[in-house]
Amino acid sequence: MSPMTLPEAEIVIEVPFHDVDLMDVVWHGHYAKYLEIARCALLDKIAYNYREMRESGFAWPVIEMKIRYPKPAHLGQRIKVRARMTEYEVRLKINYVITDAATGERLTKAHTVQVAVDMKAQEMLPGSPPILYQKLGIAP
Amino acid sequence: MSPMTLPEAEIVIEVPFHDVDLMDVVWHGHYAKYLEIARCALLDKIAYNYREMRESGFAWPVIEMKIRYPKPAHLGQRIKVRARMTEYEVRLKINYVITDAATGERLTKAHTVQVAVDMKAQEMLPGSPPILYQKLGIAP
Amino acid sequence: MSPMTLPEAEIVIEVPFHDVDLMDVVWHGHYAKYLEIARCALLDKIAYNYREMRESGFAWPVIEMKIRYPKPAHLGQRIKVRARMTEYEVRLKINYVITDAATGERLTKAHTVQVAVDMKAQEMLPGSPPILYQKLGIAP
Amino acid sequence: MSPMTLPEAEIVIEVPFHDVDLMDVVWHGHYAKYLEIARCALLDKIAYNYREMRESGFAWPVIEMKIRYPKPAHLGQRIKVRARMTEYEVRLKINYVITDAATGERLTKAHTVQVAVDMKAQEMLPGSPPILYQKLGIAP
Repeated sequence: MSPMTLPEAEIVIEVPFHDVDLMDVVWHGHYAKYLEIARCALLDKIAYNYREMRESGFAWPVIEMKIRYPKPAHLGQRIKVRARMTEYEVRLKINYVITDAATGERLTKAHTVQVAVDMKAQEMLPGSPPILYQKLGIAP
Repeated sequence: MSPMTLPEAEIVIEVPFHDVDLMDVVWHGHYAKYLEIARCALLDKIAYNYREMRESGFAWPVIEMKIRYPKPAHLGQRIKVRARMTEYEVRLKINYVITDAATGERLTKAHTVQVAVDMKAQEMLPGSPPILYQKLGIAP
Repeated sequence: MSPMTLPEAEIVIEVPFHDVDLMDVVWHGHYAKYLEIARCALLDKIAYNYREMRESGFAWPVIEMKIRYPKPAHLGQRIKVRARMTEYEVRLKINYVITDAATGERLTKAHTVQVAVDMKAQEMLPGSPPILYQKLGIAP
Repeated sequence: MSPMTLPEAEIVIEVPFHDVDLMDVVWHGHYAKYLEIARCALLDKIAYNYREMRESGFAWPVIEMKIRYPKPAHLGQRIKVRARMTEYEVRLKINYVITDAATGERLTKAHTVQVAVDMKAQEMLPGSPPILYQKLGIAP
Protein backbone atom coordinates (compact mmCIF):
# COMPACT_ATOMS: atom_id res chain seq x y z
CA MET A 1 0.00 0.00 0.00
CA SER A 2 1.46 3.35 -0.96
CA PRO A 3 1.38 6.17 1.56
CA MET A 4 -0.89 7.96 -0.89
CA THR A 5 -3.76 5.70 0.03
CA LEU A 6 -3.57 6.13 3.82
CA PRO A 7 -6.90 7.35 5.22
CA GLU A 8 -7.93 10.99 5.29
CA ALA A 9 -10.94 12.86 6.60
CA GLU A 10 -12.30 16.36 6.59
CA ILE A 11 -14.73 18.07 8.91
CA VAL A 12 -16.13 21.59 9.17
CA ILE A 13 -16.68 23.40 12.46
CA GLU A 14 -18.38 26.72 13.07
CA VAL A 15 -16.45 28.40 15.88
CA PRO A 16 -18.82 28.56 18.87
CA PHE A 17 -18.97 31.45 21.36
CA HIS A 18 -17.63 29.29 24.20
CA ASP A 19 -14.34 28.66 22.34
CA VAL A 20 -13.48 32.33 21.89
CA ASP A 21 -11.35 34.18 24.45
CA LEU A 22 -11.31 37.81 25.43
CA MET A 23 -8.90 38.61 22.61
CA ASP A 24 -11.77 37.63 20.29
CA VAL A 25 -9.96 34.59 18.87
CA VAL A 26 -10.28 30.86 19.52
CA TRP A 27 -8.32 30.06 22.68
CA HIS A 28 -5.33 27.98 21.58
CA GLY A 29 -6.19 25.04 23.84
CA HIS A 30 -9.55 24.41 22.15
CA TYR A 31 -7.89 23.22 18.95
CA ALA A 32 -7.23 19.85 20.58
CA LYS A 33 -11.00 19.28 20.32
CA TYR A 34 -11.11 20.20 16.66
CA LEU A 35 -8.23 17.84 15.90
CA GLU A 36 -9.96 15.06 17.82
CA ILE A 37 -13.21 15.43 15.89
CA ALA A 38 -11.27 15.18 12.61
CA ARG A 39 -9.15 12.28 13.90
CA CYS A 40 -12.28 10.37 14.93
CA ALA A 41 -13.83 10.97 11.50
CA LEU A 42 -10.66 9.49 10.00
CA LEU A 43 -10.67 6.49 12.36
CA ASP A 44 -14.36 5.91 11.61
CA LYS A 45 -13.41 5.46 7.97
CA ILE A 46 -11.28 2.44 8.85
CA ALA A 47 -13.74 1.24 11.51
CA TYR A 48 -11.13 1.60 14.22
CA ASN A 49 -12.34 4.33 16.55
CA TYR A 50 -12.30 4.36 20.39
CA ARG A 51 -14.91 1.62 20.80
CA GLU A 52 -13.27 -0.75 18.33
CA MET A 53 -9.85 0.03 19.77
CA ARG A 54 -11.05 -0.96 23.20
CA GLU A 55 -12.71 -4.11 21.89
CA SER A 56 -9.43 -5.02 20.17
CA GLY A 57 -7.68 -4.91 23.55
CA PHE A 58 -5.63 -1.80 22.81
CA ALA A 59 -5.77 1.76 23.99
CA TRP A 60 -4.13 4.31 21.73
CA PRO A 61 -3.25 7.27 23.94
CA VAL A 62 -2.04 10.47 22.34
CA ILE A 63 1.61 10.73 23.40
CA GLU A 64 2.48 13.85 21.45
CA MET A 65 0.59 16.84 20.10
CA LYS A 66 2.08 19.81 18.32
CA ILE A 67 0.09 22.75 17.01
CA ARG A 68 1.29 25.81 15.09
CA TYR A 69 -1.10 28.75 14.92
CA PRO A 70 0.07 31.23 12.28
CA LYS A 71 -3.43 32.76 12.00
CA PRO A 72 -6.25 32.94 14.52
CA ALA A 73 -9.86 31.81 14.01
CA HIS A 74 -12.79 33.99 15.03
CA LEU A 75 -16.30 33.63 16.40
CA GLY A 76 -18.68 32.18 13.85
CA GLN A 77 -15.93 31.43 11.33
CA ARG A 78 -16.37 28.16 9.48
CA ILE A 79 -13.11 26.25 9.59
CA LYS A 80 -12.18 23.05 7.81
CA VAL A 81 -9.98 20.50 9.57
CA ARG A 82 -8.28 17.99 7.27
CA ALA A 83 -6.66 14.98 8.95
CA ARG A 84 -4.30 12.63 7.13
CA MET A 85 -2.59 9.54 8.52
CA THR A 86 1.11 9.67 7.74
CA GLU A 87 2.64 6.87 9.85
CA TYR A 88 1.23 3.60 11.13
CA GLU A 89 4.03 1.09 11.66
CA VAL A 90 5.76 2.06 14.88
CA ARG A 91 3.27 4.70 15.88
CA LEU A 92 0.10 6.27 14.53
CA LYS A 93 0.83 9.75 13.30
CA ILE A 94 -1.83 12.05 11.95
CA ASN A 95 -1.21 15.45 10.35
CA TYR A 96 -3.81 18.18 10.36
CA VAL A 97 -4.32 21.35 8.38
CA ILE A 98 -6.99 23.85 9.39
CA THR A 99 -8.19 26.31 6.78
CA ASP A 100 -10.96 28.85 6.45
CA ALA A 101 -13.80 26.87 4.89
CA ALA A 102 -14.80 29.71 2.57
CA THR A 103 -11.47 31.08 1.35
CA GLY A 104 -9.17 28.11 1.88
CA GLU A 105 -6.71 30.34 3.78
CA ARG A 106 -4.39 28.28 5.96
CA LEU A 107 -4.80 28.95 9.68
CA THR A 108 -3.26 26.13 11.68
CA LYS A 109 -1.08 23.04 11.27
CA ALA A 110 -0.78 20.24 13.76
CA HIS A 111 0.09 16.63 14.31
CA THR A 112 -0.66 14.01 16.91
CA VAL A 113 1.12 10.76 17.69
CA GLN A 114 -0.55 7.75 19.29
CA VAL A 115 0.91 4.42 20.31
CA ALA A 116 -0.74 1.11 21.05
CA VAL A 117 -0.96 0.07 24.69
CA ASP A 118 -1.93 -3.49 25.57
CA MET A 119 -4.80 -2.91 28.00
CA LYS A 120 -4.37 -6.20 29.91
CA ALA A 121 -0.61 -6.00 30.34
CA GLN A 122 -0.72 -2.17 30.63
CA GLU A 123 2.31 -2.12 28.38
CA MET A 124 3.23 -0.02 25.39
CA LEU A 125 3.78 -2.08 22.24
CA PRO A 126 7.05 -1.72 20.30
CA GLY A 127 5.02 -1.43 17.09
CA SER A 128 1.45 -1.32 15.87
CA PRO A 129 -0.49 -4.56 16.39
CA PRO A 130 -1.80 -6.64 13.42
CA ILE A 131 -5.34 -5.29 13.95
CA LEU A 132 -4.27 -1.84 12.68
CA TYR A 133 -2.78 -3.34 9.50
CA GLN A 134 -5.98 -5.30 9.05
CA LYS A 135 -8.12 -2.18 9.46
CA LEU A 136 -5.89 -0.39 6.94
CA GLY A 137 -6.10 -3.32 4.51
CA ILE A 138 -2.33 -3.75 4.55
CA ALA A 139 -0.35 -6.98 4.96
CA PRO A 140 1.78 -6.58 8.13
CA MET B 1 21.64 38.51 31.94
CA SER B 2 22.34 34.80 32.06
CA PRO B 3 19.57 32.39 31.07
CA MET B 4 19.79 31.06 34.63
CA THR B 5 18.01 34.12 35.94
CA LEU B 6 15.05 34.04 33.57
CA PRO B 7 11.76 33.74 35.47
CA GLU B 8 10.33 30.43 36.64
CA ALA B 9 7.13 29.42 38.41
CA GLU B 10 5.60 26.33 39.86
CA ILE B 11 1.97 25.44 40.54
CA VAL B 12 0.21 22.36 41.86
CA ILE B 13 -3.09 21.07 40.48
CA GLU B 14 -5.28 18.29 41.79
CA VAL B 15 -6.73 16.55 38.74
CA PRO B 16 -10.49 17.22 38.78
CA PHE B 17 -13.17 14.74 37.70
CA HIS B 18 -14.15 16.84 34.68
CA ASP B 19 -10.63 16.54 33.17
CA VAL B 20 -10.57 12.73 33.16
CA ASP B 21 -11.76 10.77 30.12
CA LEU B 22 -13.29 7.32 29.88
CA MET B 23 -9.85 5.71 29.80
CA ASP B 24 -9.49 7.04 33.37
CA VAL B 25 -6.67 9.45 32.49
CA VAL B 26 -6.54 13.20 31.94
CA TRP B 27 -7.71 13.90 28.40
CA HIS B 28 -4.66 15.15 26.50
CA GLY B 29 -6.30 18.44 25.47
CA HIS B 30 -6.77 19.61 29.06
CA TYR B 31 -3.04 20.03 29.60
CA ALA B 32 -3.21 23.35 27.72
CA LYS B 33 -5.08 24.70 30.77
CA TYR B 34 -2.45 23.43 33.20
CA LEU B 35 0.31 25.01 31.13
CA GLU B 36 -1.59 28.29 31.03
CA ILE B 37 -2.03 28.43 34.79
CA ALA B 38 1.72 27.89 35.25
CA ARG B 39 2.56 30.39 32.50
CA CYS B 40 0.34 33.03 34.11
CA ALA B 41 2.01 32.42 37.48
CA LEU B 42 5.35 33.00 35.74
CA LEU B 43 4.15 36.16 33.99
CA ASP B 44 2.73 37.46 37.28
CA LYS B 45 6.24 37.30 38.70
CA ILE B 46 7.44 39.85 36.16
CA ALA B 47 4.18 41.83 36.35
CA TYR B 48 3.50 41.21 32.69
CA ASN B 49 0.36 39.07 32.52
CA TYR B 50 -2.65 39.46 30.16
CA ARG B 51 -3.88 42.75 31.66
CA GLU B 52 -0.46 44.41 31.61
CA MET B 53 0.21 43.05 28.11
CA ARG B 54 -2.98 44.66 26.88
CA GLU B 55 -2.21 47.93 28.63
CA SER B 56 1.23 47.91 27.01
CA GLY B 57 -0.46 47.77 23.59
CA PHE B 58 0.66 44.25 22.75
CA ALA B 59 -1.12 40.94 22.52
CA TRP B 60 1.06 37.86 22.89
CA PRO B 61 -0.81 35.05 21.18
CA VAL B 62 0.47 31.50 21.56
CA ILE B 63 1.69 30.58 18.07
CA GLU B 64 3.06 27.14 18.92
CA MET B 65 2.37 24.53 21.55
CA LYS B 66 3.99 21.11 21.79
CA ILE B 67 3.22 18.55 24.46
CA ARG B 68 4.75 15.12 25.02
CA TYR B 69 2.86 12.76 27.33
CA PRO B 70 5.06 9.81 28.29
CA LYS B 71 2.93 9.04 31.38
CA PRO B 72 -0.74 9.77 32.06
CA ALA B 73 -2.17 11.61 35.07
CA HIS B 74 -5.15 10.23 36.98
CA LEU B 75 -8.21 11.50 38.87
CA GLY B 76 -7.26 13.15 42.14
CA GLN B 77 -3.52 13.00 41.44
CA ARG B 78 -1.61 16.06 42.56
CA ILE B 79 0.62 17.23 39.74
CA LYS B 80 3.24 19.95 39.74
CA VAL B 81 3.71 22.14 36.67
CA ARG B 82 7.03 23.95 36.47
CA ALA B 83 7.31 26.69 33.84
CA ARG B 84 10.60 28.25 32.84
CA MET B 85 11.18 31.05 30.33
CA THR B 86 13.92 30.02 27.90
CA GLU B 87 13.75 32.62 25.10
CA TYR B 88 12.64 36.23 25.07
CA GLU B 89 14.37 38.11 22.28
CA VAL B 90 12.65 37.16 19.06
CA ARG B 91 9.84 35.23 20.71
CA LEU B 92 8.74 34.28 24.19
CA LYS B 93 9.37 30.60 24.74
CA ILE B 94 8.38 28.80 27.90
CA ASN B 95 9.28 25.21 28.75
CA TYR B 96 7.15 23.11 31.09
CA VAL B 97 7.74 19.93 33.05
CA ILE B 98 4.84 18.20 34.79
CA THR B 99 5.66 15.79 37.59
CA ASP B 100 3.76 13.90 40.23
CA ALA B 101 3.77 16.27 43.21
CA ALA B 102 4.40 13.48 45.72
CA THR B 103 6.99 11.30 44.00
CA GLY B 104 8.54 13.73 41.53
CA GLU B 105 8.00 11.23 38.69
CA ARG B 106 8.09 12.96 35.31
CA LEU B 107 4.79 12.80 33.45
CA THR B 108 4.72 15.42 30.72
CA LYS B 109 6.97 17.88 28.92
CA ALA B 110 5.81 20.83 26.86
CA HIS B 111 6.66 24.20 25.45
CA THR B 112 4.75 27.19 24.17
CA VAL B 113 5.88 30.04 21.95
CA GLN B 114 4.30 33.48 21.95
CA VAL B 115 5.06 36.52 19.82
CA ALA B 116 4.24 40.18 20.31
CA VAL B 117 1.48 41.62 18.14
CA ASP B 118 0.99 45.38 17.99
CA MET B 119 -2.70 45.69 18.81
CA LYS B 120 -3.23 48.98 16.95
CA ALA B 121 -1.44 48.00 13.76
CA GLN B 122 -2.56 44.37 14.08
CA GLU B 123 0.96 43.41 13.08
CA MET B 124 3.38 40.87 14.42
CA LEU B 125 6.63 42.41 15.68
CA PRO B 126 9.95 41.13 14.33
CA GLY B 127 11.25 40.93 17.93
CA SER B 128 10.11 41.49 21.48
CA PRO B 129 9.27 45.12 22.33
CA PRO B 130 11.29 47.08 24.95
CA ILE B 131 8.54 46.61 27.55
CA LEU B 132 9.40 42.89 27.86
CA TYR B 133 13.09 43.65 28.47
CA GLN B 134 12.03 46.23 31.04
CA LYS B 135 9.81 43.72 32.82
CA LEU B 136 12.67 41.22 32.79
CA GLY B 137 15.08 43.85 34.13
CA ILE B 138 17.35 43.46 31.10
CA ALA B 139 18.87 46.19 28.94
CA PRO B 140 17.51 45.70 25.38
CA MET C 1 -47.87 37.76 17.81
CA SER C 2 -48.89 34.48 19.32
CA PRO C 3 -46.33 32.55 21.37
CA MET C 4 -46.61 29.83 18.74
CA THR C 5 -44.65 31.92 16.30
CA LEU C 6 -41.69 32.68 18.56
CA PRO C 7 -38.45 31.44 17.01
CA GLU C 8 -37.22 27.86 17.32
CA ALA C 9 -34.14 26.04 16.16
CA GLU C 10 -32.81 22.52 16.10
CA ILE C 11 -29.26 21.24 15.89
CA VAL C 12 -27.70 17.77 15.96
CA ILE C 13 -24.48 16.96 17.78
CA GLU C 14 -22.48 13.75 17.74
CA VAL C 15 -21.10 13.30 21.25
CA PRO C 16 -17.31 13.68 20.99
CA PHE C 17 -14.78 11.69 23.02
CA HIS C 18 -13.64 14.76 24.95
CA ASP C 19 -17.13 15.32 26.40
CA VAL C 20 -17.43 11.85 27.96
CA ASP C 21 -16.34 11.21 31.55
CA LEU C 22 -15.01 8.07 33.17
CA MET C 23 -18.56 6.86 33.85
CA ASP C 24 -18.87 6.64 30.06
CA VAL C 25 -21.53 9.37 29.84
CA VAL C 26 -21.40 13.03 28.82
CA TRP C 27 -20.16 15.03 31.80
CA HIS C 28 -23.10 17.12 32.97
CA GLY C 29 -21.25 20.43 32.62
CA HIS C 30 -20.74 20.01 28.87
CA TYR C 31 -24.45 20.42 28.16
CA ALA C 32 -24.06 24.20 28.53
CA LYS C 33 -22.15 24.07 25.22
CA TYR C 34 -24.87 22.09 23.49
CA LEU C 35 -27.51 24.54 24.69
CA GLU C 36 -25.42 27.45 23.48
CA ILE C 37 -25.00 26.03 19.99
CA ALA C 38 -28.78 25.58 19.74
CA ARG C 39 -29.43 29.03 21.23
CA CYS C 40 -27.08 30.64 18.72
CA ALA C 41 -28.83 28.83 15.87
CA LEU C 42 -32.10 30.27 17.17
CA LEU C 43 -30.68 33.79 17.50
CA ASP C 44 -29.22 33.55 13.99
CA LYS C 45 -32.75 33.05 12.71
CA ILE C 46 -33.75 36.48 13.97
CA ALA C 47 -30.37 38.00 13.04
CA TYR C 48 -29.68 38.87 16.66
CA ASN C 49 -26.70 36.81 17.73
CA TYR C 50 -23.64 37.92 19.77
CA ARG C 51 -22.23 40.23 17.08
CA GLU C 52 -25.54 41.99 16.40
CA MET C 53 -26.25 42.21 20.13
CA ARG C 54 -22.97 43.96 20.65
CA GLU C 55 -23.54 46.28 17.72
CA SER C 56 -26.96 47.16 19.16
CA GLY C 57 -25.26 48.31 22.36
CA PHE C 58 -26.58 45.51 24.54
CA ALA C 59 -25.00 42.47 26.12
CA TRP C 60 -27.37 39.65 26.99
CA PRO C 61 -25.66 37.65 29.73
CA VAL C 62 -27.15 34.35 30.80
CA ILE C 63 -28.38 35.00 34.34
CA GLU C 64 -29.96 31.61 34.94
CA MET C 65 -29.47 28.10 33.61
CA LYS C 66 -31.29 25.00 34.75
CA ILE C 67 -30.72 21.54 33.35
CA ARG C 68 -32.47 18.27 34.21
CA TYR C 69 -30.75 15.06 33.08
CA PRO C 70 -33.13 12.13 33.36
CA LYS C 71 -31.09 10.05 30.89
CA PRO C 72 -27.40 10.19 30.02
CA ALA C 73 -25.91 10.57 26.55
CA HIS C 74 -23.03 8.36 25.41
CA LEU C 75 -19.94 8.57 23.21
CA GLY C 76 -20.84 8.80 19.53
CA GLN C 77 -24.55 9.18 20.20
CA ARG C 78 -26.28 11.63 17.89
CA ILE C 79 -28.39 13.98 19.96
CA LYS C 80 -30.84 16.61 18.83
CA VAL C 81 -31.14 19.88 20.74
CA ARG C 82 -34.35 21.82 20.15
CA ALA C 83 -34.43 25.40 21.43
CA ARG C 84 -37.61 27.44 21.66
CA MET C 85 -37.97 31.04 22.82
CA THR C 86 -40.75 31.26 25.41
CA GLU C 87 -40.37 34.76 26.92
CA TYR C 88 -39.04 38.00 25.48
CA GLU C 89 -40.63 40.96 27.25
CA VAL C 90 -38.92 41.26 30.62
CA ARG C 91 -36.27 38.68 29.93
CA LEU C 92 -35.26 36.32 27.14
CA LYS C 93 -36.14 32.79 28.14
CA ILE C 94 -35.29 29.81 25.98
CA ASN C 95 -36.41 26.23 26.64
CA TYR C 96 -34.45 23.24 25.40
CA VAL C 97 -35.25 19.59 24.89
CA ILE C 98 -32.49 17.13 24.05
CA THR C 99 -33.49 13.85 22.44
CA ASP C 100 -31.75 10.93 20.83
CA ALA C 101 -31.65 11.89 17.14
CA ALA C 102 -32.46 8.35 15.96
CA THR C 103 -35.17 7.22 18.41
CA GLY C 104 -36.54 10.54 19.65
CA GLU C 105 -36.10 9.38 23.25
CA ARG C 106 -36.04 12.33 25.63
CA LEU C 107 -32.74 12.74 27.45
CA THR C 108 -32.48 16.24 28.89
CA LYS C 109 -34.56 19.35 29.50
CA ALA C 110 -33.20 22.79 30.21
CA HIS C 111 -33.82 26.50 30.12
CA THR C 112 -31.72 29.63 30.10
CA VAL C 113 -32.65 33.19 30.96
CA GLN C 114 -30.87 36.24 29.60
CA VAL C 115 -31.40 39.92 30.28
CA ALA C 116 -30.36 43.00 28.38
CA VAL C 117 -27.50 45.02 29.81
CA ASP C 118 -26.79 48.49 28.43
CA MET C 119 -23.09 48.22 27.59
CA LYS C 120 -22.33 51.93 27.96
CA ALA C 121 -24.14 52.45 31.25
CA GLN C 122 -23.25 48.93 32.45
CA GLU C 123 -26.80 48.68 33.72
CA MET C 124 -29.40 45.96 33.49
CA LEU C 125 -32.56 47.05 31.65
CA PRO C 126 -35.95 46.65 33.36
CA GLY C 127 -37.29 45.09 30.15
CA SER C 128 -36.17 44.07 26.69
CA PRO C 129 -35.11 46.98 24.44
CA PRO C 130 -37.03 47.85 21.22
CA ILE C 131 -34.35 46.18 19.09
CA LEU C 132 -35.45 42.74 20.30
CA TYR C 133 -39.09 43.42 19.36
CA GLN C 134 -37.90 44.64 15.99
CA LYS C 135 -35.85 41.49 15.42
CA LEU C 136 -38.86 39.41 16.42
CA GLY C 137 -41.12 41.41 14.11
CA ILE C 138 -43.38 42.42 17.00
CA ALA C 139 -44.69 45.87 17.84
CA PRO C 140 -43.34 46.78 21.32
CA MET D 1 -29.02 14.60 63.04
CA SER D 2 -29.86 18.25 62.55
CA PRO D 3 -29.35 19.82 59.12
CA MET D 4 -26.80 22.07 60.80
CA THR D 5 -24.32 19.23 60.99
CA LEU D 6 -24.48 18.14 57.34
CA PRO D 7 -21.10 18.49 55.63
CA GLU D 8 -19.84 21.72 54.10
CA ALA D 9 -16.73 22.71 52.21
CA GLU D 10 -15.15 25.82 50.80
CA ILE D 11 -12.65 26.29 48.03
CA VAL D 12 -11.03 29.31 46.39
CA ILE D 13 -10.42 29.60 42.65
CA GLU D 14 -8.52 32.27 40.76
CA VAL D 15 -10.38 32.77 37.48
CA PRO D 16 -8.04 31.58 34.71
CA PHE D 17 -7.74 33.18 31.28
CA HIS D 18 -9.26 30.14 29.53
CA ASP D 19 -12.55 30.53 31.44
CA VAL D 20 -13.19 34.12 30.36
CA ASP D 21 -15.23 34.89 27.24
CA LEU D 22 -15.05 37.82 24.87
CA MET D 23 -17.37 39.85 27.11
CA ASP D 24 -14.54 39.72 29.66
CA VAL D 25 -16.51 37.62 32.16
CA VAL D 26 -16.44 33.93 33.08
CA TRP D 27 -18.49 32.05 30.48
CA HIS D 28 -21.58 30.77 32.30
CA GLY D 29 -20.94 27.12 31.43
CA HIS D 30 -17.60 27.03 33.28
CA TYR D 31 -19.29 27.35 36.66
CA ALA D 32 -20.16 23.64 36.53
CA LYS D 33 -16.45 22.99 37.04
CA TYR D 34 -16.23 25.32 40.02
CA LEU D 35 -19.24 23.64 41.61
CA GLU D 36 -17.71 20.23 41.04
CA ILE D 37 -14.43 21.14 42.69
CA ALA D 38 -16.33 22.37 45.76
CA ARG D 39 -18.62 19.33 45.73
CA CYS D 40 -15.63 16.98 45.59
CA ALA D 41 -14.02 18.82 48.51
CA LEU D 42 -17.25 18.28 50.43
CA LEU D 43 -17.46 14.59 49.49
CA ASP D 44 -13.80 14.12 50.46
CA LYS D 45 -14.74 15.24 53.96
CA ILE D 46 -17.06 12.26 54.35
CA ALA D 47 -14.71 9.93 52.45
CA TYR D 48 -17.33 9.33 49.78
CA ASN D 49 -15.97 10.81 46.57
CA TYR D 50 -16.05 9.29 43.05
CA ARG D 51 -13.62 6.45 43.81
CA GLU D 52 -15.39 5.38 47.01
CA MET D 53 -18.77 5.71 45.32
CA ARG D 54 -17.65 3.35 42.60
CA GLU D 55 -16.18 0.91 45.11
CA SER D 56 -19.49 0.97 46.99
CA GLY D 57 -21.27 -0.18 43.82
CA PHE D 58 -23.12 3.07 43.21
CA ALA D 59 -22.78 5.84 40.69
CA TRP D 60 -24.22 9.19 41.72
CA PRO D 61 -24.96 11.05 38.48
CA VAL D 62 -25.95 14.70 38.65
CA ILE D 63 -29.59 14.73 37.52
CA GLU D 64 -30.24 18.42 38.03
CA MET D 65 -28.14 21.58 38.08
CA LYS D 66 -29.44 25.10 38.49
CA ILE D 67 -27.25 28.18 38.51
CA ARG D 68 -28.24 31.83 39.01
CA TYR D 69 -25.67 34.44 38.02
CA PRO D 70 -26.63 37.83 39.40
CA LYS D 71 -23.06 39.14 39.09
CA PRO D 72 -20.25 38.11 36.75
CA ALA D 73 -16.74 37.05 37.73
CA HIS D 74 -13.69 38.45 35.95
CA LEU D 75 -10.22 37.34 34.88
CA GLY D 76 -7.91 36.90 37.85
CA GLN D 77 -10.67 37.43 40.40
CA ARG D 78 -10.40 35.17 43.43
CA ILE D 79 -13.76 33.58 44.08
CA LYS D 80 -14.86 31.44 46.97
CA VAL D 81 -17.25 28.53 46.38
CA ARG D 82 -19.08 27.28 49.46
CA ALA D 83 -20.90 23.95 49.13
CA ARG D 84 -23.37 22.69 51.70
CA MET D 85 -25.27 19.40 51.66
CA THR D 86 -28.97 20.06 52.27
CA GLU D 87 -30.69 16.74 51.44
CA TYR D 88 -29.48 13.16 51.60
CA GLU D 89 -32.45 10.82 52.10
CA VAL D 90 -34.15 10.50 48.72
CA ARG D 91 -31.50 12.37 46.80
CA LEU D 92 -28.23 14.14 47.45
CA LYS D 93 -28.75 17.87 47.16
CA ILE D 94 -25.93 20.36 47.49
CA ASN D 95 -26.33 24.14 47.59
CA TYR D 96 -23.56 26.48 46.50
CA VAL D 97 -22.82 30.14 47.04
CA ILE D 98 -20.04 31.84 45.14
CA THR D 99 -18.64 35.07 46.54
CA ASP D 100 -15.73 37.35 45.85
CA ALA D 101 -12.99 36.01 48.12
CA ALA D 102 -11.78 39.48 49.10
CA THR D 103 -15.01 41.42 49.62
CA GLY D 104 -17.50 38.65 50.30
CA GLU D 105 -19.84 40.05 47.63
CA ARG D 106 -22.31 37.44 46.43
CA LEU D 107 -21.89 36.52 42.78
CA THR D 108 -23.63 33.24 42.06
CA LYS D 109 -26.00 30.72 43.64
CA ALA D 110 -26.50 27.16 42.52
CA HIS D 111 -27.60 23.70 43.46
CA THR D 112 -27.03 20.20 42.16
CA VAL D 113 -29.02 17.03 42.74
CA GLN D 114 -27.57 13.53 42.51
CA VAL D 115 -29.22 10.16 42.90
CA ALA D 116 -27.79 6.74 43.58
CA VAL D 117 -27.68 4.30 40.67
CA ASP D 118 -26.94 0.63 41.32
CA MET D 119 -24.09 0.01 38.90
CA LYS D 120 -24.74 -3.72 38.48
CA ALA D 121 -28.49 -3.48 37.96
CA GLN D 122 -28.13 -0.13 36.15
CA GLU D 123 -31.14 1.04 38.13
CA MET D 124 -31.88 4.21 40.01
CA LEU D 125 -32.53 3.64 43.72
CA PRO D 126 -35.75 4.96 45.29
CA GLY D 127 -33.67 6.39 48.14
CA SER D 128 -30.08 6.77 49.27
CA PRO D 129 -28.34 3.47 50.13
CA PRO D 130 -27.11 2.70 53.70
CA ILE D 131 -23.52 3.51 52.71
CA LEU D 132 -24.35 7.23 52.47
CA TYR D 133 -25.89 7.25 55.97
CA GLN D 134 -22.82 5.44 57.24
CA LYS D 135 -20.50 7.99 55.64
CA LEU D 136 -22.58 10.78 57.16
CA GLY D 137 -22.52 9.08 60.57
CA ILE D 138 -26.32 8.90 60.67
CA ALA D 139 -28.50 5.90 61.56
CA PRO D 140 -30.62 5.12 58.45
